[in-house]
Amino acid sequence: MTNVNYILGVDGGGTKTIARLINLTSQEQWQAASGPSSLTNDFTGAVNVLNALIDDLTGQAACQSLEVVAVFGLAGTDDSDIVTKLQQIFAHRFAVLDIFNDATTSAYGANNGGEVAVVALGTGSVGMRLQFNEQGKLTQHIVGGWGFLIGDEGGGAKLGYHSVQALVTEFQHFGYVHSQLTQAVARFINTKDSGVITRQAIAVWLANAKPVNFAQLSPLVTQHQSVCPVAKEIIINHVASVELLIKDTRAATTLPVVLLGGLAQTTQTLLSAVTKRLLINAKGDALDGACLLANIALKKHKLVR
Amino acid sequence: MTNVNYILGVDGGGTKTIARLINLTSQEQWQAASGPSSLTNDFTGAVNVLNALIDDLTGQAACQSLEVVAVFGLAGTDDSDIVTKLQQIFAHRFAVLDIFNDATTSAYGANNGGEVAVVALGTGSVGMRLQFNEQGKLTQHIVGGWGFLIGDEGGGAKLGYHSVQALVTEFQHFGYVHSQLTQAVARFINTKDSGVITRQAIAVWLANAKPVNFAQLSPLVTQHQSVCPVAKEIIINHVASVELLIKDTRAATTLPVVLLGGLAQTTQTLLSAVTKRLLINAKGDALDGACLLANIALKKHKLVR
Repeated sequence: MTNVNYILGVDGGGTKTIARLINLTSQEQWQAASGPSSLTNDFTGAVNVLNALIDDLTGQAACQSLEVVAVFGLAGTDDSDIVTKLQQIFAHRFAVLDIFNDATTSAYGANNGGEVAVVALGTGSVGMRLQFNEQGKLTQHIVGGWGFLIGDEGGGAKLGYHSVQALVTEFQHFGYVHSQLTQAVARFINTKDSGVITRQAIAVWLANAKPVNFAQLSPLVTQHQSVCPVAKEIIINHVASVELLIKDTRAATTLPVVLLGGLAQTTQTLLSAVTKRLLINAKGDALDGACLLANIALKKHKLVR
Repeated sequence: MTNVNYILGVDGGGTKTIARLINLTSQEQWQAASGPSSLTNDFTGAVNVLNALIDDLTGQAACQSLEVVAVFGLAGTDDSDIVTKLQQIFAHRFAVLDIFNDATTSAYGANNGGEVAVVALGTGSVGMRLQFNEQGKLTQHIVGGWGFLIGDEGGGAKLGYHSVQALVTEFQHFGYVHSQLTQAVARFINTKDSGVITRQAIAVWLANAKPVNFAQLSPLVTQHQSVCPVAKEIIINHVASVELLIKDTRAATTLPVVLLGGLAQTTQTLLSAVTKRLLINAKGDALDGACLLANIALKKHKLVR
């Protein structure tokens, strides 16, 4: 096998991709960013983005990719056929290539490759526990993350969903909406007529609403929590869901908890004092996690320099 | 205006369309059936089906369509632009043409045009109250029917949904499923491997599941209710949802209730004795309702012979 002198970590999501190349001897680093590389959105686009980043960084470092142990942490790896396809395209170019979901690289980064319970609160929600097993190997266990329909309680889309449910309930019983939150939601979804909300307008919005559209309503709930009892109740249930997700993710361990995702900061301030004491700040991000996993691959394949 | 001698009622859904032409003098009737005419699935197809039925029946009766007052009761009329388009295609051919949702024609048929609370339990669920207002005009009020995401409790898709939710909960906590219902659901959704259910298999099924796929699981819940406590609890909640929908649909009236839809018969036997006493059998179907509404249009336009 070729002499391995470098590791490459990649963090690729739906909006951008960041890659870092590290020289194992000098510890010199090169970093570059490009467009999205989520595998499910645009596979060919993702391949092009990854190719360009690899060429860029190996060019900067003046190395061959066969000297590199690479780890891709990418969004959209649920379909194993797509991952296999990607592996076939890139594997022969590296000494070793491992592909992980970006949730996994995030979790490895969060506590610098140590044991940790990570709870990600974005449009959806998912928990991941990294834990050493009896053989001393770090294993991962996923909690939740089933998508919008089943679960995802604690995510931004569900926050928005409950505000729409409140709107529908009020409209159903009174023929109009009266709470401050539901009036704000009505103005948001009723873009055509600025006036009174109608059954038709609600039905048309609902028929087209994707999780991301529900998530767009979540700031309205947060903004109204101090003035509107309907918003307050939704927030109380949201906090309870997040505390339950944290509890289920930690399971019977004493692991510290890292909150990640777009909703992490907002929600963190609302948690109970007991839960807050479990939280630690993330020590690293998904890109750090990808580099850590590349180091682990290096050792596993006995390529340690 | 042309002399009106006939009424035409149409009941069009996602699988078939039935039309009935009645001679107002002789009360002679002609009936014909054809393919689907749901407006949202295939608009051009629906227009062709309606055209063919009109030609067939006016041919049999040897009449001109301008002698006819017509009522179309069709699925998929939520988009008012599509209804306007259909109205423009057909209105000039009839003395009068009214287009209604098939839920409305069903409700008019259910109690022969009299006051009634109709609750339809199919893939989804919806209630409709027909009630005379102070001016003696029959008005309609819809309860629920917001679709799978918000509400539809009491429908077949939600029955199936709760069985999948139970499967996910068990899988999450134990790493396998153990109740008789969830094992049956696992066999159903795990079509590739007949063996053990995996997170991947559940996730892939969930990512592609439409309301109709959830509804396909509802017979499993019904079948297992006497042997499996998980199924029993889902059925208890289903019955409670249907009783609530009946209550909300009747509101502060003493109206009789007609249960319609594919799940009506199964659910009817499970209702409480108090609720059962409110039920009457449907006096007519959606086609009868369309013909009743054509008679009402006849009177409204003072075309009564």
